[in-house]
Amino acid sequence: MTDKPLILVTNDDGITAPGIRTLIEVMTTIGDVFVVAPDSPQSGMGHAITLDAMLYAQNVNINSGPQQEFSCSGTPADCVKIAIRELLPRTPDLCVSGINHGSNSAINVIYSGTMSAAIEAGIEGIPAIGFSLLDYSWDANFEASKKHIKTIAKNVLKSGLPKGIVLNVNIPNVKSETIKGIRICRQAKSNWVESFDKRKNPQGKDYYWLSGKFVNLDGGEDTDEWALENNYISVVPVQFDLTAHQFIAELNTWNLK
Amino acid sequence: MTDKPLILVTNDDGITAPGIRTLIEVMTTIGDVFVVAPDSPQSGMGHAITLDAMLYAQNVNINSGPQQEFSCSGTPADCVKIAIRELLPRTPDLCVSGINHGSNSAINVIYSGTMSAAIEAGIEGIPAIGFSLLDYSWDANFEASKKHIKTIAKNVLKSGLPKGIVLNVNIPNVKSETIKGIRICRQAKSNWVESFDKRKNPQGKDYYWLSGKFVNLDGGEDTDEWALENNYISVVPVQFDLTAHQFIAELNTWNLK
Repeated sequence: MTDKPLILVTNDDGITAPGIRTLIEVMTTIGDVFVVAPDSPQSGMGHAITLDAMLYAQNVNINSGPQQEFSCSGTPADCVKIAIRELLPRTPDLCVSGINHGSNSAINVIYSGTMSAAIEAGIEGIPAIGFSLLDYSWDANFEASKKHIKTIAKNVLKSGLPKGIVLNVNIPNVKSETIKGIRICRQAKSNWVESFDKRKNPQGKDYYWLSGKFVNLDGGEDTDEWALENNYISVVPVQFDLTAHQFIAELNTWNLK
Repeated sequence: MTDKPLILVTNDDGITAPGIRTLIEVMTTIGDVFVVAPDSPQSGMGHAITLDAMLYAQNVNINSGPQQEFSCSGTPADCVKIAIRELLPRTPDLCVSGINHGSNSAINVIYSGTMSAAIEAGIEGIPAIGFSLLDYSWDANFEASKKHIKTIAKNVLKSGLPKGIVLNVNIPNVKSETIKGIRICRQAKSNWVESFDKRKNPQGKDYYWLSGKFVNLDGGEDTDEWALENNYISVVPVQFDLTAHQFIAELNTWNLK
């Protein structure tokens, strides 16, 4: 170990995903990198943790580089917990999660394993960032992301983040020269409009596939959706105190005797 | 169907758990009840959803009563999605989740399958409440909860909830006469201090069990932890816009070029 910052890298697409390999490549240029990531894809896992099963975590060597790597059988949040409590030599200076293959803007932050890993680090008081590229494909092109990811990570290492806040960074899927810059945003009020595709299995029993399309219902120009549609990288500061403080006074007028 | 309110009941402990059976019993006294709940325990699932597997949902009859019941192979959030989109005759007037066997106070709201079901309903614009009793055992005594759950649910049916807000209700595990009343609270700043118990499997490979204890680091008397320690039922209004609005101005001063 050196006096360089210690950086924990994780994700939800699994340790072999091209997105995390790119993130490792960028992070090794600014710190000592420890990777603790799921051994299989965990998209849509939200903030799931493993309570009633045991976990495996083993030292692996996915590709060459100065990083140390561990593959873990748990969820993204499990990876961060076991990294901090068991596998890392000391508390990391930064935790980065991603680069996710696909968007985690707007309400997607709630379902995102990528962001739950960042939030888990935030709960432990570690500055943390989730990075996502708006391309769901396995062979997504992460080249244009690299420079911006490095800039944002270096800023967080320099300035820190307030206790209770992590960053949710989404990157439009466009060429480097088309990216207009970085915008600080709020989470758009957008929803999935979902449907279920009902089918019969070979034994005649009904089963369902979830499908849906994302609808932006928020006309604001200060949202992550607006930024991404206009070729900006969106940065949303995310908190995990979920209290709706503005509604407490009103609730106190209810008759709950 | 009648002109009574339509109430969706779900949980994360599974459709046969005593907690949900109690909640169904209470809700059938105030509305027409549809149950769509996981076919197996889903504690700690957070806001996980099933993206790359299919779901089963089948009509079941766990015990007698006027309710209709469906058992679903998915997560709590999946149950709410498939209930609303596929199984219910119309959009429900209320969604209640629980009664969870164990606390969902403070930071536990993040990991909670019970609360993720309520939040999923909230995302769809349905007034929603998660109920939890501070007793993790399967044979927990839910008797003292019934009266208060009915009061809170009737109030939500009467007054509604603002878009983007659901309620997180925790009930102390004490006798009815010891409960002092209901307090509107904020989420306490409390953490799990975790450790991993490292063992070897019969083949000599390391594995880990997560364990930990909950530590309340928040001295405020307006928190859910304070209320519960003092034998009050805690009601926290919970929002799913995670934006830390208060940090946007500061982030705009960073040099992210």
